[in-house]
Amino acid sequence: MMTSLRLTAAEIARTVQGRVDGDAAVIITGLAPIEQARPGDLTFVAQSRYFSCLETTPAAAVLVDAACPAPTSDSLALIRVANPYLAFVQIARNFFQPPAPAPGVHPTAILGEGVRLGENVAIGPHVVIEPECEIGDEARIGALCFIGRGARLGQRVVLFPQVHVAHGVQIGNDVIIQAGSVIGSDGFGYVKHEGVYHKIPHVGTVILEDGVEIGANCGIDRSTFGVTRIRRGTKLDNLVHLAHNVEVGEHTVMAAQTGVSGSTKIGSRVTIAGQVGFVGHIEIGDDSTFGAQAGVTKSIPAGITVSGYPAREHQQARREEAARRRLPELLKRVRALEKALAKIAPEALGKIDDSEA
Amino acid sequence: MMTSLRLTAAEIARTVQGRVDGDAAVIITGLAPIEQARPGDLTFVAQSRYFSCLETTPAAAVLVDAACPAPTSDSLALIRVANPYLAFVQIARNFFQPPAPAPGVHPTAILGEGVRLGENVAIGPHVVIEPECEIGDEARIGALCFIGRGARLGQRVVLFPQVHVAHGVQIGNDVIIQAGSVIGSDGFGYVKHEGVYHKIPHVGTVILEDGVEIGANCGIDRSTFGVTRIRRGTKLDNLVHLAHNVEVGEHTVMAAQTGVSGSTKIGSRVTIAGQVGFVGHIEIGDDSTFGAQAGVTKSIPAGITVSGYPAREHQQARREEAARRRLPELLKRVRALEKALAKIAPEALGKIDDSEA
Amino acid sequence: MMTSLRLTAAEIARTVQGRVDGDAAVIITGLAPIEQARPGDLTFVAQSRYFSCLETTPAAAVLVDAACPAPTSDSLALIRVANPYLAFVQIARNFFQPPAPAPGVHPTAILGEGVRLGENVAIGPHVVIEPECEIGDEARIGALCFIGRGARLGQRVVLFPQVHVAHGVQIGNDVIIQAGSVIGSDGFGYVKHEGVYHKIPHVGTVILEDGVEIGANCGIDRSTFGVTRIRRGTKLDNLVHLAHNVEVGEHTVMAAQTGVSGSTKIGSRVTIAGQVGFVGHIEIGDDSTFGAQAGVTKSIPAGITVSGYPAREHQQARREEAARRRLPELLKRVRALEKALAKIAPEALGKIDDSEA
Repeated sequence: MMTSLRLTAAEIARTVQGRVDGDAAVIITGLAPIEQARPGDLTFVAQSRYFSCLETTPAAAVLVDAACPAPTSDSLALIRVANPYLAFVQIARNFFQPPAPAPGVHPTAILGEGVRLGENVAIGPHVVIEPECEIGDEARIGALCFIGRGARLGQRVVLFPQVHVAHGVQIGNDVIIQAGSVIGSDGFGYVKHEGVYHKIPHVGTVILEDGVEIGANCGIDRSTFGVTRIRRGTKLDNLVHLAHNVEVGEHTVMAAQTGVSGSTKIGSRVTIAGQVGFVGHIEIGDDSTFGAQAGVTKSIPAGITVSGYPAREHQQARREEAARRRLPELLKRVRALEKALAKIAPEALGKIDDSEA
Repeated sequence: MMTSLRLTAAEIARTVQGRVDGDAAVIITGLAPIEQARPGDLTFVAQSRYFSCLETTPAAAVLVDAACPAPTSDSLALIRVANPYLAFVQIARNFFQPPAPAPGVHPTAILGEGVRLGENVAIGPHVVIEPECEIGDEARIGALCFIGRGARLGQRVVLFPQVHVAHGVQIGNDVIIQAGSVIGSDGFGYVKHEGVYHKIPHVGTVILEDGVEIGANCGIDRSTFGVTRIRRGTKLDNLVHLAHNVEVGEHTVMAAQTGVSGSTKIGSRVTIAGQVGFVGHIEIGDDSTFGAQAGVTKSIPAGITVSGYPAREHQQARREEAARRRLPELLKRVRALEKALAKIAPEALGKIDDSEA
Repeated sequence: MMTSLRLTAAEIARTVQGRVDGDAAVIITGLAPIEQARPGDLTFVAQSRYFSCLETTPAAAVLVDAACPAPTSDSLALIRVANPYLAFVQIARNFFQPPAPAPGVHPTAILGEGVRLGENVAIGPHVVIEPECEIGDEARIGALCFIGRGARLGQRVVLFPQVHVAHGVQIGNDVIIQAGSVIGSDGFGYVKHEGVYHKIPHVGTVILEDGVEIGANCGIDRSTFGVTRIRRGTKLDNLVHLAHNVEVGEHTVMAAQTGVSGSTKIGSRVTIAGQVGFVGHIEIGDDSTFGAQAGVTKSIPAGITVSGYPAREHQQARREEAARRRLPELLKRVRALEKALAKIAPEALGKIDDSEA
């Protein structure tokens, strides 16, 4: 929801350490990307190929960097900042806040014994918080969330409605979890004995460090012993699966429907596209990149880009893919070679099986 | 749940504009597919290869089309209709209704200020409806659902229990959402600045048009700005992911665990099998078809059938696949050619690396 | 949560039919895997390559089998059992119990008319149980669960919070379902008529037999008619999708994000890795094995191991994969052969298209 916005370009510039070129008194009443901007809006241009849009946009003001030339019209205010996109996002976050539960504890929320609440928490209707939990200052717990016994949530944590934080899970500051995600389910671990699978109790936990964000309907398993851990600043999209004992480094991004099998360790600043799968017990180096649907069957060194199944170095995968497209033609060419050779030197190649053509 | 069914063939025929051949007074007490039909059941035969089943079925009556020959036994009533399968489904929908919440608002439901309810709505226990929502006539909201501030639901909408409809989402008439799905989660959008990802606020929304149906545990993200939209009549299976700003056309079907990345536009009457992935910012033409697990890396024209990774025209994919199966053999044949040529013209091919065999 | 543990090696040995070598009076205060064991812990060694760890572990006691040699230090108690890993798991299950709802029915739970509760059930806050359900002895129903009309749950069933068991679903004894899973959603079935999809009512159900376990955020659809069935002892990981009318045999394991399309029958003792997809209407033999991300497009006989897309016998898939890696090189070799042959017998091969290199 947008709170009503009515500020001058100068007032907005101040919030992002910007400098106004043009009419600093122009009134900003909305925010929009450049292609949707209407009169009164603040927008931004972050790439030189969009500089020409400044000539035609009806926006009231545009966030730009130092390199952007001034438009010919002087009715458009420019707000010069170091990173226009980042500044735009920061401004947007000040004015668009998703609705949160009302401050305080809703009377239908069930809080167990020994629950400690920080200052200014908001706990929605029908929330269940089991005994001995700790909820940090400014945390917002959406309706119908479940927080299991002894879980600890840091400051400014946002749980959207219907999130599940299982017993003992530890969540840092500024963590955001979208609706329906489950943090701390038991891992998929069994001992097989005489053909029957016996469940291994999962006595470990999950730790989400500061600034981690989790999409909707994810499943993140607790460790068998020890900790399934996501380090600070890492972001997961929707429907992601992390198995028991997985570790993910800092500032890594993992797109939707990706799955990581047990005990695999993923580095920091890794970029993972959607529907990627990692087998268990491998190590993924820092700064590596994974194409969509990659099937990662072994450890990958730092800095490498891989794709395909089984995942391999991306340039090699592309060469193989290009060659594969020519396979039907290649079969014909080899057949032609065999026939030609049979003509000029019948005995050199030995018997040719004509049935295979 | 089946309500108790006790009607004559004639009475049933009337509900589907059918005509009875045989005993119009026979009593129908149940419905079943042909291979499970028991005495008293109504069943249907939609394909000529099943016509012979009419000789042996113990059913009381069978829905058939005009082309179906009459069985030798005259104890079996035929109900002739234009589309026997459709007629069977229409009859089944009259008699099998999944249980719904009791009419009215359950006393444990929490309704915020300014919520407007249509006529004959049913709202289950522990539902949370935030302020300013609008719920259409005959809507059925299952237990433990969450409906965020300002969301609007049309007439006859069915939310199974534990569904999440986030703030501002707009849902048309006759929409059905299975349990656990999340409509309107924030999209996976970040600005990277000095190695840190900064969340982009998602101020857009989701619109599900009339007749859309969503499976269980899906995640459908709201747009950054603007609208993530599913047009009328489109059906999604379980565990589907739609990213922010995605648009899906009319009467498209998308099987389970498929994922669509940000800003991709999918046409109308598209058929998408399970576990398909679409990269972002591409356009998928109307009437196209996607094989299971296809990895779609670029825009696809209308009417094309594709499969594989990276997805390519299906006949080409099959040719490549057939050729791939012969690859190990092909390697041997090329080696044999090289050896033969080396025998008859040793210097023509240059040095052969024997280590590669 | 660990309940406090303070037993002698002899007391522990008795619970698993073990025999103590060494100090049977040593006090055990914790459990840990060998690499994490600390003083006072009980641990286990199940494979000969870890026997040497006995020389250095600070643990108080170790579960081993008959083949394990005694360590040189006599301060370490050995507990000899037939299957050390299984014994360890059994001991762990006695001492680590995930927290359950308090015994009895929480006052905020809503129970419909005719609900029958077994002895010693525990039903958490904000649970909704619709009329005519039956809940077996010792069942534990976590907070915010929904159980639909007429569902039947056996003895010692554990539903973690926020699980959905739809109307009429039948669940055997000792079934465990992790948070957020949906059992009994409507299947993805439509009749297409004049370009519009008409929902097929799903009047069948789901049966989970004794000992079945389901991970977090799965979706298991009810049958159109008849039963979607998982036979006893089978385990599903997180985010698994089973379509309508699927049957899965006994003691099969299915890793995360796997999907099974409608009416497919999977055998017993099958091992399925993560992100595998099965098309509909196929049969999968007993004791077969499926590599991660396999795309299974046809029936598979018993005992076979398959991988890849489309899934094929694993050794064949590996041979093709090895050959594929050499494809770019193979193209060059064929080109070289063509050039050589053109040199020695220019007319034998016919025209060579130079543009293709």
